[in-house]
This record gives sequence, C-alpha cells and structure tokens, in this order.
Amino acid sequence: MASDRLSLVFGALADPIRRAILTRLSEGEATVAELAAPFSVSQPAISRHLKVLEIAGLVSRSRRATARLSRLEAGPLREVTTWLARYQRFWDESHERLDDLLTALQARQEEDSGPHPAVTAKRNDDE
Amino acid sequence: MASDRLSLVFGALADPIRRAILTRLSEGEATVAELAAPFSVSQPAISRHLKVLEIAGLVSRSRRATARLSRLEAGPLREVTTWLARYQRFWDESHERLDDLLTALQARQEEDSGPHPAVTAKRNDDE
Repeated sequence: MASDRLSLVFGALADPIRRAILTRLSEGEATVAELAAPFSVSQPAISRHLKVLEIAGLVSRSRRATARLSRLEAGPLREVTTWLARYQRFWDESHERLDDLLTALQARQEEDSGPHPAVTAKRNDDE
Repeated sequence: MASDRLSLVFGALADPIRRAILTRLSEGEATVAELAAPFSVSQPAISRHLKVLEIAGLVSRSRRATARLSRLEAGPLREVTTWLARYQRFWDESHERLDDLLTALQARQEEDSGPHPAVTAKRNDDE
C-alpha cells in the first residue's frame, strides 16, 4: 500500500462508509456513536475507518468533556482536487466532441426538416 | 475492498505508479513497454496496474496491428471531482478563517507598534 500523501487521501476516499462519514462530518463534529448510528457497522469498525481518515489528514479528533469528537479537515480534498484539475481539459475535450456531434446532428435535422413544414411533427406532445 | 464505482476510481488513484501511468497517457496512447520504461517495475506489474485502471473505467485498451495500446478515459475523473466539489466550501471557509485571522493579527501588530516603538523588541532574532 502506497504511503505518500496523495495515495493516503485517495485510499481513504476509496470506501463508501468513509465517504459517508465525511459527508456526516460536513454537517458538524460528531462522536463515534453518532457516526456509527446510520450504519449496520460496529463502533470499533467506525473507529478503524476514522483512523484511516485521520492518517490521511481528512479528520481531526478532539476531546470535549467525556466525548471524543471527530471533525472534517477539508485541506487534503483541495489537494486531490488540484491534482484532478489537470485532467479537466480531457473531459472538457470529450464534452466538446459531444457538443460538436450534437450541433452537427441538429444542423442535419434542421436541413432535413427545412424545406417542408415538418416542424409540426416535433410538437405532437403538445396535443 | 468496496466495489462501487466511486470507490473503484478513488482506489485506482491511490497508487503513485497508477497516477503516473495516467499522466503519461494524458500525452497520448501507449504500449505496456512504453508505460513500463520510466519505472523500475516489470511489464507484468504495469499490466496489473492497467487492469485496475481499466476496471475503474480510467483506461481503455485497443489493439493496433501487433501493439496493444492503452488510452486515458477522463470521464470517471470528472465524477470524482464532482463528488469533491461539494466540500469546496469547507476549504474555502478555512481559507477565509485564515484570512480573518491574519487580518486580525496584522491589525493588532499595527496597534502594538503604533504609539510606542516596541516593534524593535520583536526583532531580537536579527541580532
């Protein structure tokens, strides 16, 4: 298992329960019991997930009176988003290709329906 | 190991060699030999990494003559970026909190150094 920072963060996010824990923590700090409540998972299992999130820097833990609270730390999410951003042009490009295709299809459809009043055929859902 | 789509993509990204493979493929299609070249890793090991990337939908493979080429598929990267985007307000907020803190510190420092020349006391590490 790779232990560099980005790998730790991506690895921590590669689990639906850990992502759900982060979503819950985005609403505010929570105890292990509160985090375990929505899942059919034991509190020790939630604690192990929290440990993975803590090692990745995604969660910090503090003690208030007898309660141990977990808190979302969003910084590493910014780091992975920055890493992902450099691939944005690739999905933008595939979007552009799709847009071009749609424009071409639309143009051809208008051409087909241009000379004769076939445009009413598109409105039959109004009837 | 979780097998939902987002978990597969995050899991695939949780390895520096697999991320480096994606970076290489962002420059164009490549064979396993070409992908293995920069690493001290065997071609079978690279093939295993490619399999993980392929299952996550991040790489597609095609055959051209005798060569088997891998190609970047950026769609899943958009999906994980969309998932991450909802946490953006948290890192923005922590930025704002930091900005507020810096502004407050700066204001206090200016206040302190205003009436009396106590500012020299803070510079004793220059001596």
